[in-house]
Amino acid sequence: MIPIKIFDTTLRDGEQSPGASMNIEEKIQIALQLEKLGVDIIEAGFAAASPGDFEAISRISSIVKNSTICSLARAVQNDIKAAGEAIKEAPKRRIHTFIATSPIHMQYKLKMSPDEVVKRAVEAVAYAKTFCEDVEFSCEDAGRSDIGFLKEILDAVIEVGANTLNIPDTVGYRLPHEMGAMIKELSEFVNDRAIISVHCHNDLGLAVANTLECVVNGARQVECTINGLGERAGNAALEEIVMAIKTRADYFAPIVTNINFKEIYPTSRLVASVTGIEPQPNKAIVGKNAFAHESGIHQDGVLKHQETYEIINAKDIGLDKNSIVLGKHSGRHAFKDKLSTLGYSLTEDEINEAFTRFKILCDKKKEIFDDDIRALVAEEIVKIPQIFELVTLQLSDCVPGGVPSAAVTIRHDDKETTDAAIGNGTMDAVFKVIDRVCGVNGELKDYKVEAVTQGKDALAKVVVKVAFDESKPAVMGHGLSVDTMLATAKAYIGALNNYMHMKEGLRMKGLEKKGI
Amino acid sequence: MIPIKIFDTTLRDGEQSPGASMNIEEKIQIALQLEKLGVDIIEAGFAAASPGDFEAISRISSIVKNSTICSLARAVQNDIKAAGEAIKEAPKRRIHTFIATSPIHMQYKLKMSPDEVVKRAVEAVAYAKTFCEDVEFSCEDAGRSDIGFLKEILDAVIEVGANTLNIPDTVGYRLPHEMGAMIKELSEFVNDRAIISVHCHNDLGLAVANTLECVVNGARQVECTINGLGERAGNAALEEIVMAIKTRADYFAPIVTNINFKEIYPTSRLVASVTGIEPQPNKAIVGKNAFAHESGIHQDGVLKHQETYEIINAKDIGLDKNSIVLGKHSGRHAFKDKLSTLGYSLTEDEINEAFTRFKILCDKKKEIFDDDIRALVAEEIVKIPQIFELVTLQLSDCVPGGVPSAAVTIRHDDKETTDAAIGNGTMDAVFKVIDRVCGVNGELKDYKVEAVTQGKDALAKVVVKVAFDESKPAVMGHGLSVDTMLATAKAYIGALNNYMHMKEGLRMKGLEKKGI
Repeated sequence: MIPIKIFDTTLRDGEQSPGASMNIEEKIQIALQLEKLGVDIIEAGFAAASPGDFEAISRISSIVKNSTICSLARAVQNDIKAAGEAIKEAPKRRIHTFIATSPIHMQYKLKMSPDEVVKRAVEAVAYAKTFCEDVEFSCEDAGRSDIGFLKEILDAVIEVGANTLNIPDTVGYRLPHEMGAMIKELSEFVNDRAIISVHCHNDLGLAVANTLECVVNGARQVECTINGLGERAGNAALEEIVMAIKTRADYFAPIVTNINFKEIYPTSRLVASVTGIEPQPNKAIVGKNAFAHESGIHQDGVLKHQETYEIINAKDIGLDKNSIVLGKHSGRHAFKDKLSTLGYSLTEDEINEAFTRFKILCDKKKEIFDDDIRALVAEEIVKIPQIFELVTLQLSDCVPGGVPSAAVTIRHDDKETTDAAIGNGTMDAVFKVIDRVCGVNGELKDYKVEAVTQGKDALAKVVVKVAFDESKPAVMGHGLSVDTMLATAKAYIGALNNYMHMKEGLRMKGLEKKGI
Repeated sequence: MIPIKIFDTTLRDGEQSPGASMNIEEKIQIALQLEKLGVDIIEAGFAAASPGDFEAISRISSIVKNSTICSLARAVQNDIKAAGEAIKEAPKRRIHTFIATSPIHMQYKLKMSPDEVVKRAVEAVAYAKTFCEDVEFSCEDAGRSDIGFLKEILDAVIEVGANTLNIPDTVGYRLPHEMGAMIKELSEFVNDRAIISVHCHNDLGLAVANTLECVVNGARQVECTINGLGERAGNAALEEIVMAIKTRADYFAPIVTNINFKEIYPTSRLVASVTGIEPQPNKAIVGKNAFAHESGIHQDGVLKHQETYEIINAKDIGLDKNSIVLGKHSGRHAFKDKLSTLGYSLTEDEINEAFTRFKILCDKKKEIFDDDIRALVAEEIVKIPQIFELVTLQLSDCVPGGVPSAAVTIRHDDKETTDAAIGNGTMDAVFKVIDRVCGVNGELKDYKVEAVTQGKDALAKVVVKVAFDESKPAVMGHGLSVDTMLATAKAYIGALNNYMHMKEGLRMKGLEKKGI
């Protein structure tokens, strides 16, 4: 058995997906789920990028026990120092430092000569080693770098103790046979002096194929993300890599991963729910159609013999299509059982609060599906303080051509304020009246609604992204209700609470002056 | 130059994506756009599957001039006859007949011996040749078939005139090197007696890599879909295949395609808008983040030198990020110019109607982006008769805990009816009152809202899928408005109109008794 290390960078490269910013509580929940999934290394962030990133890595380091926690750092002292400090509580910890090695990056971005780049890389790795034993070095844009130069720089960083050498195809330009040949040559060159890793991007839709070809040619670590999130067209999708290796064990053996396959679907749902980025229905492994059969011919085939059209059993990835449906007569015990079947381990308080909300939902909705419960729990476990709280929402006058208005009552510091506002459409009126009552001026950056399950009485999940301050990144908010407009108002207030919480947290830690 | 034929099956395999059903007008618009994209063959449907499919193929055959129009048919007489009749008006036409060749499919699904399968295939191809010169034969589940048996059946169908031999990896089980080796062996065996085609599925995330490997090993036709739609995890994505071949011409030359690259983005938008299936943001080539740069490091790099992080220019695929923004002072001329820049060729009447709606939109929204206009036009060109028409919508009482209600006035046969209903949430009230006024009882199967562009005053696009009759497939409806609830009501009524139109059309053609 040759185990391939799975290095998950959902919290770092994945968070770089436009629109995927997560708050600290959300990152912790994802890190815990990744640990449960059996990921070997969790890249929890880029400590020097912002105080929020630093804080998230540091909190994750003190909670996660089984996976190595890693922080990214440019090959500069301050970055490496921040990384080293952020991960110091982790039982297993790693610093991942990088510098670009392609002619185009060295010339235009770094404005450094190749010799200077080697020197900087060596200094960075040596300095990182003063913080922890486990150091990874990446040659950014290795896919477009000269292989002779790669050997030179890898040789140099091995000398000062780099344990893992990562070869990223940063711009997703390479074809599978090219990545394979490159990894073969480099792993023969490095031999057992260090582990060769790959990091493939999906710009041409080839990230997974490239990664698998590297595995066959000597890579012993693969970097990837849940749902293939990441810069631009994203990274190689973790679920596709590990399921290809599992499903085609006839070819890949003795290569295996440590992944707990049944956690794939719950992890995908959690990441989708937190980031608001839903995998497309036709996404391999985790898309909602991945195990659906539309045509009569296929349905007929599957009924006659499952393997006629299915190569993966949905149950293997933790998606139980015939799941028990809960309803208003289900008790606390059945609810708790269901939570544990779905893989959640909540505190008693969290279970109680989720159960209360479950009963409220039962009054509004006849059948409660697994995804309803996942949505409820996801909202529960990543909850942050309700600085502003919605008490009532009232809409009026949706006549085409008329002037829509909305009235809200919002509780803040134990005081209730009610006011109304008009808007350009109902949704706009809802946002304007919340702005008015809370004394803010949010700018909506993104808006999405999805039915969580089927039926007219489906729970609507609204995700908004709002900028409350031009100098700070936009924040996300989620709202869940059978009423879309109520969910919208909740989501907007949720975003506002996230923003206040972030500002407050940083002010109290004296980090705000460093600028987030 | 070795041109690879692009065989697009968005209208056939793509439509088999659960939730992607399209009406006839929508299929015609997509076919015209595929022709503009430069697709060599359009698989317009499966004529024997339903009267609606037959009608769509037949209408497309009489309109499209430059692309070959193809219908799928099982290897049975009635299917082939229906296919032959449906395509008969097309200047270039093809019948695509198939039978399964893998042991598991022959034994469990067909319950036929290999010899019977060969005999049936030969009969099917020979019969298809009586309808048209151009006949394609597919070995379903070739990916799991014995290569000796494949050679036997291909030899036999070549004898009776099959021009194209398609090798599908029906269940998406194969790895790139395996598909490559199979195609190499088969194309050497077939030589110049016929064209070898491939059709790859994406269950392991490898459809595009598999397709490209086949191209290098002798395939001269590739089957693919826009946005990678299709059964389960979908087919190989057309845009990824053709952009990989173009971007990596250094490797693929002399292989080229006839694709007009600038039509890729408009085609992707049209298909997303019609099917309601939006590519995920991190989808390669056409995802909304495919050309977005979130991290400071990447943004800095791109500003210093575009190619540091971009290997494809967004303009090449027809996505102009710096597009001119129209507003309320833009005249009819500027609007018409913009339409032609965006690649639409509308009749004067259609332009007039779109312009009227554009001016209404300008009153509500400060800046009109290209995607706003695409959405307006998409709604315009796929319009079907307004059997029921929304006059007014009024909502009330959204207080949490209260009883939401909605009132509508709907015009039908020149008569206006007004009524109200309560519901379980605002959205439910809207659906219930429409049901009441129109005398139907729709069951909501899917619901989605998306902001078409940024900003609080973004156009909301609502897509619903509703079953009005248990014995018939659910129909889709679209609604567009700055007001989400208004867009929801429009979408639901749109679905109802689609349903009435479909029923009416089939009744008039006397096709209903055949059952749709």
